[in-house]
Amino acid sequence: MDIGMIGLGRMGANMAARLQRDGHRVAGFDPGAAARQAAAQAHGLEAFDSLQALLAALPAPRALWLMVPAGAPVDATLEALRPLLQVGDVVVDGGNSNYQDSQRRAADCRRDGVHFLDCGTSGGVWGLAEGYSLMVGGDAAACERLRPLFETLAPAPDRGWGRVGPSGAGHFAKMVHNGIEYGMMQAYAEGFAIMQRKESLALDLPQLAEIWRHGSVVRSWLLDLAAEALHDNPSLEGIAPYVADSGEGRWTVAEAIELDVAAPVITLSLLERLRSREKDSFADKMLAALRDRFGGHGVRQG
Amino acid sequence: MDIGMIGLGRMGANMAARLQRDGHRVAGFDPGAAARQAAAQAHGLEAFDSLQALLAALPAPRALWLMVPAGAPVDATLEALRPLLQVGDVVVDGGNSNYQDSQRRAADCRRDGVHFLDCGTSGGVWGLAEGYSLMVGGDAAACERLRPLFETLAPAPDRGWGRVGPSGAGHFAKMVHNGIEYGMMQAYAEGFAIMQRKESLALDLPQLAEIWRHGSVVRSWLLDLAAEALHDNPSLEGIAPYVADSGEGRWTVAEAIELDVAAPVITLSLLERLRSREKDSFADKMLAALRDRFGGHGVRQG
Amino acid sequence: MDIGMIGLGRMGANMAARLQRDGHRVAGFDPGAAARQAAAQAHGLEAFDSLQALLAALPAPRALWLMVPAGAPVDATLEALRPLLQVGDVVVDGGNSNYQDSQRRAADCRRDGVHFLDCGTSGGVWGLAEGYSLMVGGDAAACERLRPLFETLAPAPDRGWGRVGPSGAGHFAKMVHNGIEYGMMQAYAEGFAIMQRKESLALDLPQLAEIWRHGSVVRSWLLDLAAEALHDNPSLEGIAPYVADSGEGRWTVAEAIELDVAAPVITLSLLERLRSREKDSFADKMLAALRDRFGGHGVRQG
Amino acid sequence: MDIGMIGLGRMGANMAARLQRDGHRVAGFDPGAAARQAAAQAHGLEAFDSLQALLAALPAPRALWLMVPAGAPVDATLEALRPLLQVGDVVVDGGNSNYQDSQRRAADCRRDGVHFLDCGTSGGVWGLAEGYSLMVGGDAAACERLRPLFETLAPAPDRGWGRVGPSGAGHFAKMVHNGIEYGMMQAYAEGFAIMQRKESLALDLPQLAEIWRHGSVVRSWLLDLAAEALHDNPSLEGIAPYVADSGEGRWTVAEAIELDVAAPVITLSLLERLRSREKDSFADKMLAALRDRFGGHGVRQG
Repeated sequence: MDIGMIGLGRMGANMAARLQRDGHRVAGFDPGAAARQAAAQAHGLEAFDSLQALLAALPAPRALWLMVPAGAPVDATLEALRPLLQVGDVVVDGGNSNYQDSQRRAADCRRDGVHFLDCGTSGGVWGLAEGYSLMVGGDAAACERLRPLFETLAPAPDRGWGRVGPSGAGHFAKMVHNGIEYGMMQAYAEGFAIMQRKESLALDLPQLAEIWRHGSVVRSWLLDLAAEALHDNPSLEGIAPYVADSGEGRWTVAEAIELDVAAPVITLSLLERLRSREKDSFADKMLAALRDRFGGHGVRQG
Repeated sequence: MDIGMIGLGRMGANMAARLQRDGHRVAGFDPGAAARQAAAQAHGLEAFDSLQALLAALPAPRALWLMVPAGAPVDATLEALRPLLQVGDVVVDGGNSNYQDSQRRAADCRRDGVHFLDCGTSGGVWGLAEGYSLMVGGDAAACERLRPLFETLAPAPDRGWGRVGPSGAGHFAKMVHNGIEYGMMQAYAEGFAIMQRKESLALDLPQLAEIWRHGSVVRSWLLDLAAEALHDNPSLEGIAPYVADSGEGRWTVAEAIELDVAAPVITLSLLERLRSREKDSFADKMLAALRDRFGGHGVRQG
Repeated sequence: MDIGMIGLGRMGANMAARLQRDGHRVAGFDPGAAARQAAAQAHGLEAFDSLQALLAALPAPRALWLMVPAGAPVDATLEALRPLLQVGDVVVDGGNSNYQDSQRRAADCRRDGVHFLDCGTSGGVWGLAEGYSLMVGGDAAACERLRPLFETLAPAPDRGWGRVGPSGAGHFAKMVHNGIEYGMMQAYAEGFAIMQRKESLALDLPQLAEIWRHGSVVRSWLLDLAAEALHDNPSLEGIAPYVADSGEGRWTVAEAIELDVAAPVITLSLLERLRSREKDSFADKMLAALRDRFGGHGVRQG
Repeated sequence: MDIGMIGLGRMGANMAARLQRDGHRVAGFDPGAAARQAAAQAHGLEAFDSLQALLAALPAPRALWLMVPAGAPVDATLEALRPLLQVGDVVVDGGNSNYQDSQRRAADCRRDGVHFLDCGTSGGVWGLAEGYSLMVGGDAAACERLRPLFETLAPAPDRGWGRVGPSGAGHFAKMVHNGIEYGMMQAYAEGFAIMQRKESLALDLPQLAEIWRHGSVVRSWLLDLAAEALHDNPSLEGIAPYVADSGEGRWTVAEAIELDVAAPVITLSLLERLRSREKDSFADKMLAALRDRFGGHGVRQG
């Protein structure tokens, strides 16, 4: 079917390519000329330089897929789209938006007779080849109308995607998915760190990751990636111990507390990332100062 | 090749069956008549009722695989085996022993000219069909001699197993594996608990687990099991919120602290299990009492 | 000086009494007749039944102290006060309001020429006798004008109170104070729980709390209360292991994450309170179900 | 009464001085000439250069107080003392020994007719002036015989000390005391770190610590020290964020797990100290590497 892909960064361009490859007609838009050219060159994508041109190129009722950074950019895009949309158009937000923003945006669109679907998308840079896991929230009929797109984007037509509830449900599920991801990553990271430190056994981390990939209880796709990363760089040399976070972990923690659910492991996984970015922890300095005050233990100069 | 399997509980009997099925000749032993009969009936296993008879039935140098509960039972079995073993025999401990015990036992065996291999074994009840992930510690030549066994037990001859270091390395790696397993399980459990509590979205947990199995970053074998469990019992009705632990998690936590490695997520995963078994937490009562003392908040009767 | 106390619950009535006892003239208001009567009887307080009457009884520029529940009640009270206030009046919010609400309210009041001070108040039911610890945010001159009140409410005129910054600073500091309080309480609770469980040593918890009160590193006012609580009820019998929370802990956790500060102990203290209220943890059931799936460990019926 | 103080480091010398000042006759011993001279000069202490000389100077049955580093030094000292001791002598270990070591040592001493008391001692460098909090484990009669010493060392004869149980109980209680101390310190440290980071409010940390000392729920001796530390160095400049630990925290964590008591806050407080000493966390590098693998997020060079 026809689809307009708005945002041709890596994720958007990859999804457009996967759709096109399966016979869909994808018209693209990105405000940046470089992104448009890259998408055109890499995937032969038709890339417009204005939303007006994009929408004019699509038959009504239109299907539009937003793949733009969460937050203000989504609102700005919707704002720009608003006068161009018609009753019956469907807009999918495939990014990592906060589910509460998605609920608000869906309500706003509904007033104009436009459907807004929030689609949690997992799979990262591997999705082009392997397919994306898609959790869709919003109107059931609108979701059904876009079924051909979801069937192409998912790893297989009958699996890896689904409408999971009303507006907000897709991004809520994706938020929790990422919270779980934080916890799993931290669990692996701690385990490998323990083995790395056990110098007397001289464990071979790439070998262990590889062994565990087959038959063990902890086998997973993240372990596949860990095995690759360790194979390429067994001591992780040259990589700074600095871990960014992009929002969903924070939202999961806030939501868990709001719901009175204790989620200590997801929470600690987030805090460890904050900790990784502390260059000169005031809390640690305070502890050192206090120890010195009551025990005369002295402090290190720093 | 010929192998004596000592301990015919579920794990031992399954491993014996997988070995036999691939053409090895397995002689079994278990002190319990019921276990012997079950193994004989289910897998046609030759099951002896004494270690003497078992060892007499095996050609020298013998290969023996222990699949008995960790701790005292392993020591008792080795004690009973000691007078029966000959120089060059190989004893594998395939259970979840503490790696320090394994190092001690290997040193003891070495004095008698016997090889002791510690083999961390992952795969649980699924290993019979899918193969086991095996991490072997100990003498390289002894490990090489048993290669045919490992190749059969693993998911494939060339993957899912390996000699990972000197004595203790196999059980050390398995210990950390289980620590990671705790963290991953806790991450999933928290995530699903958050979604279950979000009543306004009425999320379908079995559906979400199934969607995530395909293409998502959190796909894993544990998620496959979670999807099955939720499919069969979406509300987990009838299951008590009581989580046992069998040692490796505690050891991982202790080892991490000993090595000065902060492993908060693995650690908290263990503590959550302890917490699940607290019927009447003294700490919580103390908090309630203190709140009442300074704030006059009152306490609930309990 | 003259002061209007709005809200004659326990905290408000106690503060009014402490002010009156030191020579200030306190006019009170509470919407509830019972609270008015109780305050009048216990402390001889002049209690009005309308804000109009209260404000009419106070000389301009007026000083008003709000001691009402945080959240909507504060906004409702300010809404009702608004038409009655005059330029130059000072309103103090002495409750546990969110500091961001206080910043908003101060800005609203400022538009009317009214000063709004946010005053974090610690001391609980003991404040009447021992004085309150007061952290004041807002206009410095307005704060100075109310100095006689702060000097009376604090444990001593020259200590235990201060203007700590612009609007919001008082409630921000109180929020963090309460976060610290959570952590300290949890630390004591865990420590006493460990000692209580060590049955082989039969430790006498009230005795230990009492010993620690004198000369130990952990001596504190909270320990004084713990010693009392344990003295009165050494086994904490009849107290449910159910711990409420009233907001400041959550705000501290959210603020720490917002500021990228890892505060694991304050955070875990909050999560333990949530956990204390879980009757039938879905996460724990999930863990039990997963263990059974891969290891055949069985589950407890629940 | 007469007492032999073995170990004249800061703690031993201070305790000797406090005893002497109250009329006891203290004979000291330290293997180091510098420590002997310092104690002699600072407190006029009679310091012997051999255990033989020390014991010869004391009337039987002797009272000896060990103030030597925990672990091997205590065993070595007891080994050296053994041939010199007589039936009825009492040896007190006032250091931070592991309670299980103390139970073993008490059993060993008992075989020689010697009493061994384990005395948890809190108070640090302030104990000389303010008195020590003392938790004594071991034989009740032996403890009673040394009552005059405990009454002098404690802040007051009738408070701040007590026999808290059989052998091991004193050091067990001290171990838990220190675990609580870790948690309290971490709670304060996190709270002040949050306030320090809130730049928009420009909070004055020394002022807040000082305000809280009077009337607040979090007032404590540790807060008194925090106020001093912040007064002297508000930004904690020049202090490295490096926090040592000396064993009791680890033991508390291990003991809690052994007893199946979840103590997350004490545990995390220990892990934060480990974390403060990680210069180049392998776990964090692994997280950064994994993020890059699935999301193409890139890593920082390090």
